[in-house]
Amino acid sequence: MSDNINHIMSANQQYAKEFGENSDLGAAPKKRLAVLTCMDCRLDPLKFLGLELGDAHFIRNGGGRASEDAIRSLVASYTYLGTNEFLIIHHSECGFETFTQEEMGRLLKEKLHSSEGEFINWLTISDRIESIKNDVMHIRNHPLIDKDITITGLLLNTKTAELTEIITL
Amino acid sequence: MSDNINHIMSANQQYAKEFGENSDLGAAPKKRLAVLTCMDCRLDPLKFLGLELGDAHFIRNGGGRASEDAIRSLVASYTYLGTNEFLIIHHSECGFETFTQEEMGRLLKEKLHSSEGEFINWLTISDRIESIKNDVMHIRNHPLIDKDITITGLLLNTKTAELTEIITL
Repeated sequence: MSDNINHIMSANQQYAKEFGENSDLGAAPKKRLAVLTCMDCRLDPLKFLGLELGDAHFIRNGGGRASEDAIRSLVASYTYLGTNEFLIIHHSECGFETFTQEEMGRLLKEKLHSSEGEFINWLTISDRIESIKNDVMHIRNHPLIDKDITITGLLLNTKTAELTEIITL
Repeated sequence: MSDNINHIMSANQQYAKEFGENSDLGAAPKKRLAVLTCMDCRLDPLKFLGLELGDAHFIRNGGGRASEDAIRSLVASYTYLGTNEFLIIHHSECGFETFTQEEMGRLLKEKLHSSEGEFINWLTISDRIESIKNDVMHIRNHPLIDKDITITGLLLNTKTAELTEIITL
């Protein structure tokens, strides 16, 4: 067992003891919100949005991008669990701004001797305002996303934790 | 501006005022961990794992599944930001256990008059232990995942917040 797993299993036992108060939460988000944001270790979306456990779905990936898998999750969120508002949140100092499609392909070829990395769209970000607008528009125009859902794109400043609204469609 | 956005922007201003103490966190997770888990609204992974802001990447999608997009995020996590341990965490009472591939396709056809839903793999779960094992094995065997990374699959009991280790590869 790794040091991390040892720490986690012990901390989890403590958390489970104190958890009783939340155990009657249902699967449907109380605020009917689904949030798509980045996997970045500096982000605690519940906190920077002022939400509580049970309020929202949280979908997170590299960059907070509107990938096919994010669409899969958002569709399940609204069809089966009743959300009617999506927030798409990218952030400053994102790791996905620091490399390119070509660099990732080259790195993986050197490291693992596999050219598979060249066939993946890494969804890197060259302009963080454009990436938010494009992702909101992609979700808005997707044939499996209900037109009644409100979609807002926001930018999080990683240094100050401040949100700025960029687009609502 | 929706009620949710009004609440969030106001709560965010308050959070940003108190955030200063964390603003020197770097993009590389301190515990070199990347966690893949479900978007479910009842999960606060930082808390049920006993982790702090800055410790880990959090990738979340419907079911916590090892989708192509989760692989994209995990690869970026270890190549550019130095993680060397992945946790894959599915949970009891998951929404993705409550419908099938065929039901989702039919629902979307009725609701949106689009047959696109039939061409998406919804990654539903019929056996939660098998889904954890399969996803851990899929990541372990993926050509773009470095063999030196430790991968552990865990099950979270949604009612009690308790984790059980299922597999380590």
